[in-house]
Amino acid sequence: MDVVEAARAAEEAGRSIIHMEVGQPGTGAPKGATEAVARALSAPLGYTTTLGLPELRRGIAQLYARWYGVELDPARVIVTNGSSGAFVLSFTALFDAGARVGMGLPGYPSYRQILKALDLVPVGIETRAENRYQPVPADLPVLDGLIVASPGNPSGTMLDRAALAALIAAQPRGFVSDEIYHGLHYGARAVSALEISDEVHVVNSFSKYFSMTGWRVGWMVVPEDHIRPVERLAQNLFICAPHVAQVAALAALDCIDELEANRATYAQNRALMLEGLPKAGFTRIAPPDGAFYIYADVSDLTQDSRAFAAEILAEAGVAVTPGLDFDPGRGGRTLRFSYARATADIAEGLRRLQGFMGARS
Amino acid sequence: MDVVEAARAAEEAGRSIIHMEVGQPGTGAPKGATEAVARALSAPLGYTTTLGLPELRRGIAQLYARWYGVELDPARVIVTNGSSGAFVLSFTALFDAGARVGMGLPGYPSYRQILKALDLVPVGIETRAENRYQPVPADLPVLDGLIVASPGNPSGTMLDRAALAALIAAQPRGFVSDEIYHGLHYGARAVSALEISDEVHVVNSFSKYFSMTGWRVGWMVVPEDHIRPVERLAQNLFICAPHVAQVAALAALDCIDELEANRATYAQNRALMLEGLPKAGFTRIAPPDGAFYIYADVSDLTQDSRAFAAEILAEAGVAVTPGLDFDPGRGGRTLRFSYARATADIAEGLRRLQGFMGARS
Repeated sequence: MDVVEAARAAEEAGRSIIHMEVGQPGTGAPKGATEAVARALSAPLGYTTTLGLPELRRGIAQLYARWYGVELDPARVIVTNGSSGAFVLSFTALFDAGARVGMGLPGYPSYRQILKALDLVPVGIETRAENRYQPVPADLPVLDGLIVASPGNPSGTMLDRAALAALIAAQPRGFVSDEIYHGLHYGARAVSALEISDEVHVVNSFSKYFSMTGWRVGWMVVPEDHIRPVERLAQNLFICAPHVAQVAALAALDCIDELEANRATYAQNRALMLEGLPKAGFTRIAPPDGAFYIYADVSDLTQDSRAFAAEILAEAGVAVTPGLDFDPGRGGRTLRFSYARATADIAEGLRRLQGFMGARS
Repeated sequence: MDVVEAARAAEEAGRSIIHMEVGQPGTGAPKGATEAVARALSAPLGYTTTLGLPELRRGIAQLYARWYGVELDPARVIVTNGSSGAFVLSFTALFDAGARVGMGLPGYPSYRQILKALDLVPVGIETRAENRYQPVPADLPVLDGLIVASPGNPSGTMLDRAALAALIAAQPRGFVSDEIYHGLHYGARAVSALEISDEVHVVNSFSKYFSMTGWRVGWMVVPEDHIRPVERLAQNLFICAPHVAQVAALAALDCIDELEANRATYAQNRALMLEGLPKAGFTRIAPPDGAFYIYADVSDLTQDSRAFAAEILAEAGVAVTPGLDFDPGRGGRTLRFSYARATADIAEGLRRLQGFMGARS
């Protein structure tokens, strides 16, 4: 967040900043979604049922058929206040106070913070480059649960079916699969944990592929006997996800052309990054399977990624995220580059990075 | 929730049901709010800052000047995912695991459930009719915190300035004032805890007076030194409140005429209820100061409010809420009547209740 603040301050002072620190699409909700909202505005948009609009839950279930060939009972789909809401519900429903919940490092920092806020114990598992920065069964200590993310944030790396199945087999209890970047793949589609097991919690969102971050609508899929406990929790903690956002989400499910055009832009950006980052001197990068991130090992350049990111912002006018946010132990030697913005911005950012690094060496 | 389900089932079977069980306005967001949303739909509505849109925080701060004559620094206003989100943040920020948090009974049932989900200990305090169903200092055991609601739900009763000040003085630590029904008063305006102390957490929402339940946007006001801790929690647990709902909320602040017209409808409904309920035989009611509820002691009619509510629904076609939801110990002898719907519905509901009770006696 330091980078975000510093980038904003620099922009307010009149500087041009290229945003490679962002965790959200530069695009808005798809047109079909905002049109559906415009049509819905004349009706009172009161509370929906806690589990979500029935037609949205059906639409999400159909997405599992479309994307993975998995038949899913809509009753198991719970619409949430973004994936954040889903994590709060999942962790509260699955774990008792003091439970030890594992997660790969580097990883999304809010897992740790949400767990701590709920009096649970986050257990960071340092992953290795040769394992695509994903945990493997041999890495796992004794745990009450495990969160995995494929594609990962910040790494963008994916678990293939065998790797994901091995993790579920190793930690069947309290298994949470964060699939928020599903849909954003550039080779094979990411594997859903639901292709492997019905006894897991799957978390997803309309924020990334569906380009609807600020709408705060996501979902979770839970085993049948977890529906009622999660519903009761959600009733008290959230009442329901925003009605207007559910209307937008339902329409977004059908906006395939626009969303695939967004994905084509990311693919183009990714190609530019894979060409331009090594030219700038960022050569050790994680396999960039999905999402819109490149995670770079910069240990040949710095041991202080925070200072380095500040230097890149000040000198090159490019905002990037220091790895410390994702891996407290080793993140001083890594950076995350996001390519979620427009292609012209990515190209300009790469030019700046190349100029900065050229002058530095 | 049983009543809500039974009422829906009856309606689906073709019966006409009058909804006196609802906890939300029948009206939608004010016109100015939906117009603002329609105008905003062409921009990408990404994440806002965690604390909320700066102009919305300023607008909310100005509301404290308008309503209470209190000057409030907008920096202390945190926009949340409804009051539900505010309670989660407040309880997490204020209390450590195992903390004992008091609340008056009857009271909003989600307080208890949210506290339990966060490994805190809810301590119900049975209030008395002669104290307007509100706690008084002499009622308080040793506590780590206290939640008060004025106007209360289900009671609709208010704490005057002296009564609220006495409670804050008795339990200054961990004091949370739920002011979600502020704006819906029929005599003197409700007193905000901020008129008395800056060291409390105040929770409010756009759901009730501003008629925007399903939009999931509320706010909290915290002491200055709590802003950063709450911001950090909110960043991880929620990221931000829905952007589109914040746009609507900002505009709603200025929709005074429409919102006051809603309030005039409630006032008319309340007058009908105060005339019609006693005629039907519901004579022992809590002082109906605010909100849109009447809480009736029906101990002369039943000891089983759940069965009685089911009977009223089946026989009269009027859905009401059994007090057990609000007061596990004594709620078998109470009912909550809501007058949040259109006046014609309220009039019809009262006719039905009078017919039912007349036939019963």
